[in-house]
Amino acid sequence: MTLLLGIDIGGTKSAAVIGDADGNVLARASALTPQGSWQEAYAQLLGLVQEVCRTHGTALTDCVAVGVSCGGPLDSRTGIVHAPPNLPHWVDVPLKSLLETDLGLPATIENDANATALAEHRWGAGQGCLDMVFLTMGTGIGAGLILDGALYRGRRDLAGEIGHATIYPGGVPCLCGKRGCLEAMASGTSIGRMGRERFGEENLTAHDVCARARLGDPIALSVIADASLAMGIGLANLLQTLNLERIVLGTLAVHAADLLLEPIRAATEAYCWPRVWDGVSIVPAALGDAAQDKAALAAALLPAS
Amino acid sequence: MTLLLGIDIGGTKSAAVIGDADGNVLARASALTPQGSWQEAYAQLLGLVQEVCRTHGTALTDCVAVGVSCGGPLDSRTGIVHAPPNLPHWVDVPLKSLLETDLGLPATIENDANATALAEHRWGAGQGCLDMVFLTMGTGIGAGLILDGALYRGRRDLAGEIGHATIYPGGVPCLCGKRGCLEAMASGTSIGRMGRERFGEENLTAHDVCARARLGDPIALSVIADASLAMGIGLANLLQTLNLERIVLGTLAVHAADLLLEPIRAATEAYCWPRVWDGVSIVPAALGDAAQDKAALAAALLPAS
Repeated sequence: MTLLLGIDIGGTKSAAVIGDADGNVLARASALTPQGSWQEAYAQLLGLVQEVCRTHGTALTDCVAVGVSCGGPLDSRTGIVHAPPNLPHWVDVPLKSLLETDLGLPATIENDANATALAEHRWGAGQGCLDMVFLTMGTGIGAGLILDGALYRGRRDLAGEIGHATIYPGGVPCLCGKRGCLEAMASGTSIGRMGRERFGEENLTAHDVCARARLGDPIALSVIADASLAMGIGLANLLQTLNLERIVLGTLAVHAADLLLEPIRAATEAYCWPRVWDGVSIVPAALGDAAQDKAALAAALLPAS
Repeated sequence: MTLLLGIDIGGTKSAAVIGDADGNVLARASALTPQGSWQEAYAQLLGLVQEVCRTHGTALTDCVAVGVSCGGPLDSRTGIVHAPPNLPHWVDVPLKSLLETDLGLPATIENDANATALAEHRWGAGQGCLDMVFLTMGTGIGAGLILDGALYRGRRDLAGEIGHATIYPGGVPCLCGKRGCLEAMASGTSIGRMGRERFGEENLTAHDVCARARLGDPIALSVIADASLAMGIGLANLLQTLNLERIVLGTLAVHAADLLLEPIRAATEAYCWPRVWDGVSIVPAALGDAAQDKAALAAALLPAS
């Protein structure tokens, strides 16, 4: 059996996993991510790798490759991490070459949206299709694109930053400094913000808005409707551009699939050509809590560059 | 020398050319496209092929492949043409298999935006880049995408239909039935329409609007500014989605490059992340009047499927 090492580096928690080529997680070690220097966090990662190998009774040399899923911006070609917002101390860290030296395995570094797109395509809701997008509706909106069956990264690993495509020119301010971005209307964060504004309550979250919408509250329903409409326009523009077959939505679209999926489908259809919309499926992500582990394993399966 | 046969089928004129693998057109025959049955138009194409072979002193068997550039919708995999708006009588015509039978050459059928993108990438303004779009600003707005160095067609050859991405939700009606499409604001047709509306003159064209803008007319300049802004938003969304390296603009952006290119660049930059915009070039198409001939030759160079 081919064994793979996966490393998921998050802003809050990090994990090392041993898995197989079918995406099964065989062993796992995790810890809170140290918030100081990147060297401290990196040393901890090496410790997690040792721990997971010990747990599984595997020598590192039994693994054929290591894959890393990490927030961007990063350069997958050079394997250098460029201070992601959730890992601000990781300034130009040559993670790929460090890991290849310290672990003796070929390493692939991917941003988390791309790695999760790979995992959903291989083992989740994207199986069997050639052209798809995986899109998170969490704190922000990020996407990974599988085109003609392969990950498409763009010139600098920035493909899929459609959270900052403009949906409403001159619309509400976005944290990125622009206005009317998709993310400013349809992320979990924005659903929470719209809820706070419209209810006049300071501590409301997206989950609170969803809970009230499920009880039929008209203000909460208006927030869900506006977010779904913005998402539908964004997805329709994506379909007109790329003529995709499938759209896989993560995070809030999974937790609140009952509220969001049908309105998003209806809005997408309304803003697409019938010929472009025909046969497209919009589905929730399928990998659940294991998504990040499997994302790292999927990165390990990419051909080493 | 490798010889290629190219066929360009337009709504008004059609041509057959003999060319080489460097995109040089060695001989050419053209005629008005018959407006009756597709059979009549097809018979004429076969005549043009005979004529161009005779002119060049070449036997058909000296050519290695035939490429066709034709309006979409069409299916490049099956080679069937599905009644393009400019060729309404071509209902489900199996053009690839007809040509392969009648000419004895492997045939590739591409829609004209994709074929022109291939030609600009190989021989024109897109040379040397991996990720680019070619985009027309003519009667309509259509695009062809080169991603990771290869043509990306999407599930049903509809990738690149960004003329009907929504730029202004609820905006001006588009001929496609939606509102606020890029094409409804930034095509040559729309520049003419806005000119007629704002000047209150019935017969004004996009070229008239450009001529008045060059003389400093403030109304004409407002039309150019609004079209450039819409185009910039559309291009910025494309860059956020695909992280391209180069944007090649055709038709009106070539004829009125003096008026359009800088405003389009400025608007695109304003609606993009700096990291996404950095290093992007927006340039006019380079193949000029030979674009359609070279597009057909570029299609002939694709691997036969």
